[in-house]
Amino acid sequence: MQKVKPALLRGFDQEYLPQDQLQFNRLIDIARRNFERYGFLPIETPSAERREVLTSKGGVEKEIYALTRLAEADDDEAATKGALRFDLTVPLARYVAMRERELAFPFRRYQIQRVWRGETPQARKGRFREFYQCDIDIINRDRLSYLAEAEIPSVIYSVFREMAIGEFRIRINNRKVLRGLLQEFGVAQERSPQVLRILDKAEKEDGARLVEELEREGLARGAAGDLFGLVVKKRSTQETLAVLAPLKGCAQGLEELAQIAEAIGKFGVPDAAFAIDLGVVRGLDYYTGTIYETMLVQYPELGSICSGGRYDDLASYFTDTRLPGVGISIGLTRLFSKLKEAGLLQPLETTPAQVLVTTMDPRYLDRYLGVAQALRAAGVNTEVYLEQARLGHQLTYADRKGFRLAIIAGENEFGRDVVQIKNLTTKTPRDVPVSDIVSAVTQELR
Amino acid sequence: MQKVKPALLRGFDQEYLPQDQLQFNRLIDIARRNFERYGFLPIETPSAERREVLTSKGGVEKEIYALTRLAEADDDEAATKGALRFDLTVPLARYVAMRERELAFPFRRYQIQRVWRGETPQARKGRFREFYQCDIDIINRDRLSYLAEAEIPSVIYSVFREMAIGEFRIRINNRKVLRGLLQEFGVAQERSPQVLRILDKAEKEDGARLVEELEREGLARGAAGDLFGLVVKKRSTQETLAVLAPLKGCAQGLEELAQIAEAIGKFGVPDAAFAIDLGVVRGLDYYTGTIYETMLVQYPELGSICSGGRYDDLASYFTDTRLPGVGISIGLTRLFSKLKEAGLLQPLETTPAQVLVTTMDPRYLDRYLGVAQALRAAGVNTEVYLEQARLGHQLTYADRKGFRLAIIAGENEFGRDVVQIKNLTTKTPRDVPVSDIVSAVTQELR
Repeated sequence: MQKVKPALLRGFDQEYLPQDQLQFNRLIDIARRNFERYGFLPIETPSAERREVLTSKGGVEKEIYALTRLAEADDDEAATKGALRFDLTVPLARYVAMRERELAFPFRRYQIQRVWRGETPQARKGRFREFYQCDIDIINRDRLSYLAEAEIPSVIYSVFREMAIGEFRIRINNRKVLRGLLQEFGVAQERSPQVLRILDKAEKEDGARLVEELEREGLARGAAGDLFGLVVKKRSTQETLAVLAPLKGCAQGLEELAQIAEAIGKFGVPDAAFAIDLGVVRGLDYYTGTIYETMLVQYPELGSICSGGRYDDLASYFTDTRLPGVGISIGLTRLFSKLKEAGLLQPLETTPAQVLVTTMDPRYLDRYLGVAQALRAAGVNTEVYLEQARLGHQLTYADRKGFRLAIIAGENEFGRDVVQIKNLTTKTPRDVPVSDIVSAVTQELR
Repeated sequence: MQKVKPALLRGFDQEYLPQDQLQFNRLIDIARRNFERYGFLPIETPSAERREVLTSKGGVEKEIYALTRLAEADDDEAATKGALRFDLTVPLARYVAMRERELAFPFRRYQIQRVWRGETPQARKGRFREFYQCDIDIINRDRLSYLAEAEIPSVIYSVFREMAIGEFRIRINNRKVLRGLLQEFGVAQERSPQVLRILDKAEKEDGARLVEELEREGLARGAAGDLFGLVVKKRSTQETLAVLAPLKGCAQGLEELAQIAEAIGKFGVPDAAFAIDLGVVRGLDYYTGTIYETMLVQYPELGSICSGGRYDDLASYFTDTRLPGVGISIGLTRLFSKLKEAGLLQPLETTPAQVLVTTMDPRYLDRYLGVAQALRAAGVNTEVYLEQARLGHQLTYADRKGFRLAIIAGENEFGRDVVQIKNLTTKTPRDVPVSDIVSAVTQELR
């Protein structure tokens, strides 16, 4: 028979073996648990939205995947008007606008789902066409306290600390400070978004070229270099505050930034884990207050693994209600691919594969099954080897799948009412009475 | 500003409020935990596959959503050759064929992801265009023991028992028995698939009309009625075995069915939870041994909530390796919508919303945050109300979000080094020393 080649689509190719999938799921579970610890509740939204919903903010059409039917079909809205979401923020805005009266505000939600973007895939940069985003947002009606902005880093901190991905630093800045800086340097209001987008590249691209780009936006040669230098230079939080203090245009932003930086400490984030950094710029127009990036201290080349900011109005395209909010997003697929590459994934403390009950003599099926049921009832993940195979083959399977213990028993053992427990790490076997199996196994697994 | 209407696409509309999403996530967590307890490992596959992969088995094109770009784009395989998966079995076949050498066999995998089908949405039947499937399969190379078929019901049993969705019954049949029956009734080999599809509708559609359909497939009037009657009649397992015993064509299938039914009991499934039932037919061609359906005893009208079967070769379109397997699928979105409708969702034992620390006096921010940090460190989900609002407003928020306890404190309380813990269910408040807060709260939550 003519075979179809089993292959994946370019950019839709972050598919893991089970051991890696377990690692990935561990990261998701840690995120969920920590988000819930802080009072965030889960939502999921459909993969496809109405096209006019997705494009309401404008400017993203070129990256959107639309749906169509493979064969002709009548009356399918999804195929004529639907497209896949490219982020979780637009669906959130639509969700809140639709369900405003059913939600309790401040609305704190987390959402961990796949998104799709027609970008050029670059595995080296961790850029794919299908990937997970992991978002939290706090949305309120009409007003939102600066304390919400101050709380976000404590959530990020607790997530990454538990993920144990090495030393990290949450860097914050404030859009009002950046606007003030641009004003001080005489950047015209209408040029600001473009200037911010240039400055956002300061840590990734060639400085001389970016200074030239700034000049093309109307900055004088010296001013462009000064602005660039101010943004890109690494300073302590105190030094940064001192540098900004004389700049009148930054006064309001600076006060806010200092206030939030102080509150971040009160929310339990240690000083070493965060910093004010003027190099945090973020490309997106709609941020208006605190902006966040998070770097791995040992691997700055990975770029920001968690970014976001404060915005003034989430859903202005859908509703007249003013919905200020603050949120961050972890690009989980990219983070995972980078952690794996850098060898930063922790070994799993518990795996689903704990005990394999081998079956060397089919006559004892009932007893093998009885052992497995007793272990499962005690919360131990237990698999029975159901095929007929030599014991050596069964133990090879146990090793490949990562089981920690094997139970081995035949006539010799059951005749004495014992089973052998073999520790697959230390390779040591010991006999235990069948009646003690649960306590012996749970002890061995500890 | 002209607003965009915040609305969903027809069939892409199973979107929940956070309280329902928590319930849905609870079902997923139960499935995951039980699957892992039995040695199944997780995989996820990309949402989009190559079109020739999805259509390799043929006959499904008309329900497939393909991808396209909303705006012109160069060099995007996904947009020219990609489409969304319509089930989790075809991606599994592609996955196993691609990674054959990296997997340990028997390969036991679970997969809980969304699938997309261009069917006509019918909320009444729980039929949507985007929905979750929750699958397990056991795949081996070359041969697969009947014990794998016997184990599947024990996994289903443990999942639904923990979900606590009321009494359920796992009904099994065997394709070899059905083939034997058809042979006894003189159905030509090439008519078998169509006859099976007709019999599969026996419990849902009008009997007289189905008997006519059977006649159109070549059965004589009397024979069609007899076959229909045999399949549709409810009997005990023993009665069914007795009815089939004299039929020579069924002998092999019957022996297998009886053997598997006996083994199912050994795997720990109580007699009351399963039954042999000739009415289990399943429409799909490729099943070859045991087939499964699961019904809620009190709500037979919901139809099967978990179905599957044994097949002889998973991935013949992709590889020459013979990969026999057995698997079942839970249509989780449909199950959830039906459970909700029938009022069968259990109240959540724990919710993310456990304690709300109210903030009636901003001067005590540090102390509010300190209380919250202590509680979180003890594993209690704790939110601090960060906006400035009257206490009554904060308590209304606590009620709406489902918090179980509120911490209330101001000058009066902190002056005496106590806080008030208010149980939001019983409405009773009590003062506890700040130093005892963790033990008092954990005790109250028990």
